[in-house]
Amino acid sequence: MYLSKLTTCAAAMLISTALVAQTQVKEDFVPSSKNQPGQEYPMVNSQGYARFRVIAPEADSVKVTLGLGGQGGTRLEKQPDGSWIGTTSGPMDEGFHYYHLIVDGATFNDPGTINYYGSRRWESGIEIPATDQDFYALKNVPHGNVQQVLFHSPSTGTERRAFVYTPAGYGKTDKRYPVLYLQHGWGEDETAWSNQGHANLIMDNLIAEGKIDPFIIVMTYGMTNDVRMGGARRFDAKDFETVLVDELVPFIDANFNTIADRDHRAMAGLSMGGMETKLITMRRPEVFGYYGLMSGGTYSPDDLKGSGVKKVFVSCGAKENPDGVNASVKALKEAGYDATSYVSPGTAHEFLTWRRSLKEMAPLLFKK
Amino acid sequence: MYLSKLTTCAAAMLISTALVAQTQVKEDFVPSSKNQPGQEYPMVNSQGYARFRVIAPEADSVKVTLGLGGQGGTRLEKQPDGSWIGTTSGPMDEGFHYYHLIVDGATFNDPGTINYYGSRRWESGIEIPATDQDFYALKNVPHGNVQQVLFHSPSTGTERRAFVYTPAGYGKTDKRYPVLYLQHGWGEDETAWSNQGHANLIMDNLIAEGKIDPFIIVMTYGMTNDVRMGGARRFDAKDFETVLVDELVPFIDANFNTIADRDHRAMAGLSMGGMETKLITMRRPEVFGYYGLMSGGTYSPDDLKGSGVKKVFVSCGAKENPDGVNASVKALKEAGYDATSYVSPGTAHEFLTWRRSLKEMAPLLFKK
Repeated sequence: MYLSKLTTCAAAMLISTALVAQTQVKEDFVPSSKNQPGQEYPMVNSQGYARFRVIAPEADSVKVTLGLGGQGGTRLEKQPDGSWIGTTSGPMDEGFHYYHLIVDGATFNDPGTINYYGSRRWESGIEIPATDQDFYALKNVPHGNVQQVLFHSPSTGTERRAFVYTPAGYGKTDKRYPVLYLQHGWGEDETAWSNQGHANLIMDNLIAEGKIDPFIIVMTYGMTNDVRMGGARRFDAKDFETVLVDELVPFIDANFNTIADRDHRAMAGLSMGGMETKLITMRRPEVFGYYGLMSGGTYSPDDLKGSGVKKVFVSCGAKENPDGVNASVKALKEAGYDATSYVSPGTAHEFLTWRRSLKEMAPLLFKK
Repeated sequence: MYLSKLTTCAAAMLISTALVAQTQVKEDFVPSSKNQPGQEYPMVNSQGYARFRVIAPEADSVKVTLGLGGQGGTRLEKQPDGSWIGTTSGPMDEGFHYYHLIVDGATFNDPGTINYYGSRRWESGIEIPATDQDFYALKNVPHGNVQQVLFHSPSTGTERRAFVYTPAGYGKTDKRYPVLYLQHGWGEDETAWSNQGHANLIMDNLIAEGKIDPFIIVMTYGMTNDVRMGGARRFDAKDFETVLVDELVPFIDANFNTIADRDHRAMAGLSMGGMETKLITMRRPEVFGYYGLMSGGTYSPDDLKGSGVKKVFVSCGAKENPDGVNASVKALKEAGYDATSYVSPGTAHEFLTWRRSLKEMAPLLFKK
């Protein structure tokens, strides 16, 4: 049975590879939406192929760290004009991808793209248009603001930065709003949810369509513990908990029109930010009433015992661990918790998974 | 007379070069404050030298487009470990400098630094510590916010971005504030005054020290006319005037607690932003009561006839055109205008000139 399944899989992969090889690459490439102003390359086509062009007349090899899984990226070929051009060997997953160049063994960013903070460095980024990209498009609707705030943190002895999304109309009246504290992943920072995630545009559009009641989102730097990948097992997020719960939450409640109680405060995060969310909500259930884990682990019913949580949201990409996510939410429901799972179709551990997760989670928050 | 002056100059330059060559480079290099998190290079020392290190084991030449004037940058030398290291041949001017790498003829950014938008691209940046850097330092004082706002622009058919500095305490009461519209230079964008200019920190510190009454600053993209350097003569800034005066000003007055009249509205800009300020204030004197040109031209008394301007501020770096700036302000004063000139010591057409200009100009605004 197991062998037979493997054989079927292998056959399917062979057919799939053959199909890819036979596919005609459509020559309808357009500049990626993440390019620097006026830059033509990198380009993307309607099938999800990406094409790169780098000017490096005296280089001996130019590679892009992006391509089909397992192939180690895309090698560019030198052209007579001194440029290097290459196209991915197949369609990429929809959505945003980080990458960089390897030029004669050296790591540089692609001069064509805007930079996005990921992997603890500012990286190049490319956007493969998604079939559902409309939900995070910049439209002529009332826009909320993204405010950079600087707050004093006694525990770290620093002035720290957060970004605060305030919905359109915020501040024009005395209206007070619930708050979602939304964390980035490992190697990213507080710019990620706005720059890569378009959290503000997702909110603007959901609000304009009447799908959610407006709320505030607060995004701050979560690498306070400076965890390395290998150290994740020991990762306890306690330093970050102090900054977030004891310093930032009071600052936000003192400086913004918030409803400053547990039932109007949510915490969610992607990847490492999900791990932080789980650790902090379990230790400080009196602070947050709504929890969201996006590609960042799951809760067991035991984890939530005595928490009084109003709603749990757990998500991931279909190429990640959908069975684990679904099983967790099934167990939570059976134990009497209000929990919702979401699996993003066709995506992996990348930002389209998390944009969609925010869109799915937002209408579920602050409803009780 | 003219020849003799030239000769004196040449002698002075020779002496200066000899002095530089004799100077011992102090080995007290520290990472530049504009580096990416955790990056050691580029470094700067207490004399203003910059030292670069780039890992490029298979490259044949690595150059940095930064160094003493006329020398075309700094060539790095290959080290046994595959890195390339080089130090500027002399001290750099204090303050912020854009640069990039030339690696085997190809243009890349230095992976060590954060990127800053200048020259119509995201560039590497380095900060040579200035003797007066305290006025734009991040301190434990009440901080204003920098808000990203998106506004609909019918004239261009786009949703456009601006950043709005609101001083600490803004929005906690019904207090209304004057507004400075502050423009970046050619090739830069609406991020420049916050990222390179630290306009928000300059304001925070001036307010904390009681040196100014708080006001709002609005920064938006001024390359609407998409002027190229060569096209500057034809540059009329009319498209930008429509966006700024007819679209953004009403949006800001509708959405922020402003005092919405001419006597509480200023316009200033650096370089091309100064040219825009001059053109737009001359055509729309009913909109702005205070004008500032920073390394961006001068006004003649005729330019201001009938304008009713309350105050004119004109500045530049000592290495630019101080005589022109001083002569302009002298003529304006003689014609009865309230005008102030400022020359930034030891700086050229770069951001320290403009940080200092903002610090000098801010206390002069909205005083009548």
